[in-house]
Parts: sequence; structure tokens; C-alpha cells
Amino acid sequence: MSLERVAIVGSGNWGSAASRLIGKNVQQNPRFEKQVKMWVYEELVNGEKLTEIINTKHENVKYLPGYKLPENIVAVPDIKEAVKGATVLVFVVPHQFIHNLCVQMKPVISSHCRGISLIKGIDFDESGPLLITDIIKRELNIPMCALSGANIANEIAAGKFCETTIGYENEQDGELMKQLFHDDMFRVGLVKDVAGVQVCGALKNVIALGAGFCDALEMGNNTKSALMRIGLIEMQRFTKKYYSNVKLETFMESCGVADLITTCYGGRNRKCAEAFVRTKKSWEELEEELLGGQKLQGTTTAKDVYLTLKKDNVLEEFPHMVTIYRIAFEGLPPERIVLDI
Amino acid sequence: MSLERVAIVGSGNWGSAASRLIGKNVQQNPRFEKQVKMWVYEELVNGEKLTEIINTKHENVKYLPGYKLPENIVAVPDIKEAVKGATVLVFVVPHQFIHNLCVQMKPVISSHCRGISLIKGIDFDESGPLLITDIIKRELNIPMCALSGANIANEIAAGKFCETTIGYENEQDGELMKQLFHDDMFRVGLVKDVAGVQVCGALKNVIALGAGFCDALEMGNNTKSALMRIGLIEMQRFTKKYYSNVKLETFMESCGVADLITTCYGGRNRKCAEAFVRTKKSWEELEEELLGGQKLQGTTTAKDVYLTLKKDNVLEEFPHMVTIYRIAFEGLPPERIVLDI
Repeated sequence: MSLERVAIVGSGNWGSAASRLIGKNVQQNPRFEKQVKMWVYEELVNGEKLTEIINTKHENVKYLPGYKLPENIVAVPDIKEAVKGATVLVFVVPHQFIHNLCVQMKPVISSHCRGISLIKGIDFDESGPLLITDIIKRELNIPMCALSGANIANEIAAGKFCETTIGYENEQDGELMKQLFHDDMFRVGLVKDVAGVQVCGALKNVIALGAGFCDALEMGNNTKSALMRIGLIEMQRFTKKYYSNVKLETFMESCGVADLITTCYGGRNRKCAEAFVRTKKSWEELEEELLGGQKLQGTTTAKDVYLTLKKDNVLEEFPHMVTIYRIAFEGLPPERIVLDI
Repeated sequence: MSLERVAIVGSGNWGSAASRLIGKNVQQNPRFEKQVKMWVYEELVNGEKLTEIINTKHENVKYLPGYKLPENIVAVPDIKEAVKGATVLVFVVPHQFIHNLCVQMKPVISSHCRGISLIKGIDFDESGPLLITDIIKRELNIPMCALSGANIANEIAAGKFCETTIGYENEQDGELMKQLFHDDMFRVGLVKDVAGVQVCGALKNVIALGAGFCDALEMGNNTKSALMRIGLIEMQRFTKKYYSNVKLETFMESCGVADLITTCYGGRNRKCAEAFVRTKKSWEELEEELLGGQKLQGTTTAKDVYLTLKKDNVLEEFPHMVTIYRIAFEGLPPERIVLDI
């Protein structure tokens, strides 16, 4: 049996943290080739190429400073060279890069290649939600898994205990991917539900906006937990409506309830939503002031979800997400968060 | 069809808050007699009988000061008089009172009476967990429902939005009980699962101890949410082991995930567990200092659960709850909270 060749496509904060897990696991597992190539979007850091820094200092000084990468992780600036002959692809790039990268990758990857997406969120087109894994499948025609959970790259790099969830289509692929990521301090749970895992990761940001509104109004812990629970049920309902094979258990995994909790207590969507109510500033101003110009995922997703539900004439089945949208974009008073359920 | 006669057995903080919901709902629903008797353990408040204060000022000045009770709630110090002819019994007393009260109630309640327990927690005997509803059924031989959720009496009285869960054996009883409690700001969810609702209410306090340990160690939101999720899964596993009819959905209701969240962020068990690690004081000292001498439910339940699991030789199926017990009572270092899973 030939060895699995792993390539990581992307090397930002999350990609670098993931490469620490992958680099360590492949060294200990005879199933894998020991060297893992990581595609790095080449850029200069203090006049030096980032790939060269990574390959000599074994640290991504720009996106994950302070943490060593294993020496078997080799940074490669050319996408074709990075993924040549790969049998396992780990996608961890901003999703607008996917199309161009896949076009270049297609001719050189192994014919029995499979992939896993660590990319956060989902996309939407005129017809509705679009999974990142489906976008990649359309381009490369390979089986795809998805990984999502209550994970922050720096906490994982620091060895703090957390869990994650891998959704798979067939069990062997799920087990293979688990071997790449699982670790005593980064526990992988498996579910046969690629869609559920990804939709959770996107919709939790919408629910976190509601949690932030609730915090601003000082409604208390019981009201907040009620809204989070209602949000979890609507996440489930949404996934079921658009992906019939979704599993109820997915929502009890790290990607579901745990990620929802951490996002509704600690995340940037919650924080900006609280400030939105307290300061009455626009989302653009808050992104500028609180996130240094980065975009909030929750507001974009709230809008996409709303437009999809409206087109499909099912707004009344999702009162909580609709109310969040209306508070965020239509001037509905935030107090309505508990009244329009 | 004769009208339902409701009696409330108990008048503490939670009983008084519940009487506000019940008193209002029976007035608006032709199915019920308008007067609701509430059994009050008679005591003197500034030289005046509590029942007389309630019946003249319509306020339980001792246990729910600042909130009016509806005038159709009539305080009665004699248990037989309070429940005579009752067809619906609402139990909201400390559970050590149940046996004696039931003995007195049995001869005077209606033959087609049914009850609902708002009593928190569960009991344990040599053979294992014992539901409060089963204790009451054994005494009175009536069908029982149970109500539990992310609820704090004063927040409900203040009209803050929250949800609760009623577990029922047969649907008509569940619907009847919902009519007694449901309100726009106090939403009732129904599940055919009397055991699950009660076990959630007890075990969440154990999981909250773990959350408090995690807070003291400043492990961060992701670790905390992972431990809460693992706790939820063990709550489910425990319930399934001892009550085969339990429903998975129960854990997605207010009594499950929502109450767990609020207890792990806001409750006294979390607070004392954090102090336990930070100060290294004993539980007794902490109860004295932080709770004015009141007893923590989480520590007692952790011990009962541990002894039950040990007797049944299944400790290894519940690593999280066992670790919490060992940190709380056997001097295990709190850092092990994430290592022994």
C-alpha cells in the first residue's frame, strides 16, 4: 500500500496551527509520508520571503508568531508543486481563492485524492446556500470532508484543550482525516454529515449577533441561554431544509453546541452586536473601530440567510434569525429580540 | 365537564413566582376554577402570619418581595384544606417535606388528580437515582409531569423572557400543565420524557462545578465550551442508562442545553467551584462564606452520582463527572479536568 501524501493549501493563522497538528501526527503514523508540503501565498516580511522564513526558522512569523512549526512542514510558494501527487488535501484558504487554486491543482493531484475543508462559513448564490466542500467537489471531483469546532488557532497552538468535529461522506475518509488532526488536547469527533458541520460554523455567527443584542440590553443569563437554544434549533431547521441528510447528533458535537456557546460568549460577532445596540454606530464603523477594518461574518451571513428564506417563502419558520436580520439591517428595535419569536 | 381545581403545594421563592403565572392563566382559561389554593408553611413575619400577609397584601413578603401575587391565589396553612378536591397539584416544596405532605393529602385529593413537580434535583438511594416524580407517584399513585428549565424565580417574576420544559407521561396531561404555566415571556416546551427533564436539572449542577474549575484555571472559552459539551453528553448517557425511555430531544430543550449554559456561566455551583480552586478552602467554608450557609446541590449530586456509578461498575463511561468528583472530594489536581476525559 503506498503512503498517503498530504498537502496543506493555505498558511494563515488557522492553517499554521493546523500544520502543527498534521506535522506531528504524520511523523507518528506509518500510513503517511513524513514530509508535508504547505502552499504559502508568497509575500515579503521585512524584505524576506515568507516561505524562506518558514523553511529556515520553522515559524510563520507573520500569521502564527511564537509557535514553532514541525520541520517536516515545507513551505512551497507554487501551488502545483505543493500539491503534486497529493492524496490528501487540506484546504484552509479564504474562500475567494478556491476557484483559481483548484484550476491549477486539478492536473497534478492524485487520481484517488480526497480533501478536507477547514474553511469557515458557507457561500450563497441565487439558488441558496452553497457549501465550500461542494464548491471544491465541483472543481476537483473528489470526496470531501469538513472540519469545524470551538477552535481558536492560537489556543490550539498553545496546547489548550479543545474539541473539533469532522463531517465525512464515507467512514474511511473520516477515519483518515481524524488520524491527521486528532491529539490528546485536540479531540476529533466524527459525524457522517458534511453539510451540518459547515452550516453550524456559518449560522452560529448569526445567533451570536442575537446574543450580543441581548447582552447590550442586559437581559440576563436565562434570556440569553434561551435565545441561544432557540438559535440552535433554527440552525438545525435550516440545515434540514437545505440538506436532507443532516444528522441531529451533529448539533451536539463541538461544531454545534460548543462552538455556539463559545461564539455567543467570546466572539467578535457578539462583541460588535453589543456595541451596535449600545453605540448606535453602523456596522462599517464598528468593523473599523473594533476589528481594524476586518469584516464581520455574522452580518453577511444574516443577510444571505434572510434573502434565501425570503425567496423560499419560509421566513415565518425562522423567527429568531429573521428578527436578528431586521434589528441589524432594518432598524427594528433590539428589544424585539424576545418578542418576535 | 367539571372544572379543574388547581392547588399549589409550596410557597417559597419559586412557588410564589409560579403562582403568578398560574393565577393569571387560570383566570383566562375556562377550563379551570378561578380560585387557586396555595399551601403555605405557616410562619410569623414581624409578628404577623405569612398566610394572612399573602391574603391581604397579595405579596409573599418573605420569599418573593416586591411582586404582587394575583388575588385569586389564596394562602392556606392547612395542607388538607389546601388540596381538598384538587384535580391538579403543583409541587414546589423542599423534597424532604414530600412524604409527610403526601400522607396527609392522599385522602382528600380528587380520584382523577394529576400532578407536576417543580422541585429541583433528584434523590438517590442504595439502588441508584430516584426521581422526585417517582417518590410522589409511590405515595399518591397519580400521573406526574415535571417542569425544569433555565429559570430563576426573580427573573420570571420580573417578566424577563425565558423558556422552560415540561416532561409528561401522557400528552393530555402535558397540554393541561402547559396551559397552567405558558405565557409570552415564559415559553413552555413539551417533551414526553419525565425522567430526562429531572435528571438534566440535577446533573447540570455537577457539570457547572467543572466549568468553575475551568474558570479558575483560566483555560479559556473554547476549553470551557468543550467541557460543557462533554458534560451534556454524559448527562444524556447517564439518563439513558437509568431511564430507558429518555428522549434525545430533551437535551436540546430549555431543561437541557439552555439550563446547562446558564448554570455554567451564572450559577452558584460554578461560583463556588471557581473559589474552591482559587482559595483552596473547603466546600463547607465556601458555603458559609458565599452562600450564607446554604448547601450546594452540585457537590451532593456529584457524590451521589459517583457512588451510583461505582456500585454499578461503570465509572469509565463517565470520565468527566468522575473527574469532577475526584477534584471536589479526593484531592485530584484541578488541571486534570481536561486530561482524564
